[in-house]
Amino acid sequence: MTAPLFDTVCLVGIGLINSSLARALRKHDLARRLVTLDISAEARDAALRLGIVDAATADAAEAVKGAGLVVVGTPVGAMEQVAAAIGPHLEPGTIVTDVGSVKIAVVRDLVPHLPDGVHFVPGHPIAGTEHSGPEAGFAELFAGRWTILTPLPGGDPKALEKVRALWSAIGAMVEEMDPHHHDQVLAITSHLPHLIAYTIVGTANDLEGHLQQEVIKFSASGFRDFTRIAASDPIMWRDIFLGNKEAVLEVIQRFTEDLTALQRAIRWGEGEVLEERFRETRAIRRAIIDAKQA
Amino acid sequence: MTAPLFDTVCLVGIGLINSSLARALRKHDLARRLVTLDISAEARDAALRLGIVDAATADAAEAVKGAGLVVVGTPVGAMEQVAAAIGPHLEPGTIVTDVGSVKIAVVRDLVPHLPDGVHFVPGHPIAGTEHSGPEAGFAELFAGRWTILTPLPGGDPKALEKVRALWSAIGAMVEEMDPHHHDQVLAITSHLPHLIAYTIVGTANDLEGHLQQEVIKFSASGFRDFTRIAASDPIMWRDIFLGNKEAVLEVIQRFTEDLTALQRAIRWGEGEVLEERFRETRAIRRAIIDAKQA
Repeated sequence: MTAPLFDTVCLVGIGLINSSLARALRKHDLARRLVTLDISAEARDAALRLGIVDAATADAAEAVKGAGLVVVGTPVGAMEQVAAAIGPHLEPGTIVTDVGSVKIAVVRDLVPHLPDGVHFVPGHPIAGTEHSGPEAGFAELFAGRWTILTPLPGGDPKALEKVRALWSAIGAMVEEMDPHHHDQVLAITSHLPHLIAYTIVGTANDLEGHLQQEVIKFSASGFRDFTRIAASDPIMWRDIFLGNKEAVLEVIQRFTEDLTALQRAIRWGEGEVLEERFRETRAIRRAIIDAKQA
Repeated sequence: MTAPLFDTVCLVGIGLINSSLARALRKHDLARRLVTLDISAEARDAALRLGIVDAATADAAEAVKGAGLVVVGTPVGAMEQVAAAIGPHLEPGTIVTDVGSVKIAVVRDLVPHLPDGVHFVPGHPIAGTEHSGPEAGFAELFAGRWTILTPLPGGDPKALEKVRALWSAIGAMVEEMDPHHHDQVLAITSHLPHLIAYTIVGTANDLEGHLQQEVIKFSASGFRDFTRIAASDPIMWRDIFLGNKEAVLEVIQRFTEDLTALQRAIRWGEGEVLEERFRETRAIRRAIIDAKQA
């Protein structure tokens, strides 16, 4: 029997992602001991009750003591505070990673608080559901999905390899890119779609009462597809938009121009403009099906 | 054994909806004979090969001869031409219905071509998939879904009852409303979501090559949810937007205002505005799940 990849792993914030990671680490025997640091007593109690961690605490020093790996899984807006709290207690050689959906802001917020000799490997598993909290997690969340790592220039190659090995061991496909490129790609694949979904569901929510009831009744005609992602965690998404402001504003601008062009075509009855645009978009769906991401 | 609800039923256009209806009529023994009128030889051949109709023709007179019910299931932009072609051959007492996604324009286009004694009951089954054509249909498409009927003032109550009985018999829930209200409700539940989905997928399609490949690769992070409905039939959707211009332009306007407000909140770092908006939208998702439309 081989030794687990890590001795003690500390999961900071035990929400959907980190509670899924805890289950996956257990399932694949990748850590000897799992500890969670969470400010919410409710979340700590749930994690212990579910048996997905060995210990749960709100004390930063206690949480990271002896940890070979620390995984920061709070909303990205809270990560600087987390880093300030755990930084002084991290032992040399510890690997710190995160699961945040934006990367430039996370690197900016964490790096100043990490002592010399601690290795930071920023990460982002492209996986999730519209549900939140430790009860919502499951061990297979990352299987067959991508995890993006955005290693820092001059970072420790062994630390990078260990983090990569962890994600691979739980079934994820791993890709490396620089944080700036990550934030651009995610702005279009994830952040804009969520913003649009929140907007359209909000527009419907503002309708007069009887019309709103009918929107729910007849939601299977298209609207329904948007409501799933618009049910995602509000705090997490607030922080993502604030943390990737430039890239998000840029893609909103492109989107708005494109919507305005279609709006104009509808107003002036330009059927051929609409038809041509609608034909192009079928190819993307086919490519996604071919890439087995549908 | 009771007699079927209809003797001969003529399905004009044998695409996803009418081919599903043909299968459902067969399955529930609701018609003695099914005929399709379609200008596409390929579609006619497919319908015969699949065994979902007894006869297929491109001749309007032949198609509607002896039909007690005619179901117009072409894209809504083609319905006026269809009505002009079949109108002179319709026998008194025939019931005409349609499955178009807009109702004011369909009523406007069909009524002038229907002779006295022919009963028109406009309809719209709120069901579909992103696939098109006679092969894509299936008998259960309408089960548990809504069909909206928008009967004309002074229309024949018996004709309305027969059309209602048909949809109920194949498992649909039937609701009546006036065409104007229908077009308003569908503009928000169906037409705007499709336009937004086409827009965002189009925005991604316009990206530089390497970024486009990454959008496909990482589409599971949100983008994927939009691509399904953006793969819907281009001609059908062109006609819907042109046929419901006023209501669609009105909801685009509301949507754009709401998006601009969120864009502004992101630019100025107004986290509380974002968080509040994102909290509201969760309630709609819950209501849809409660209404069993999720």
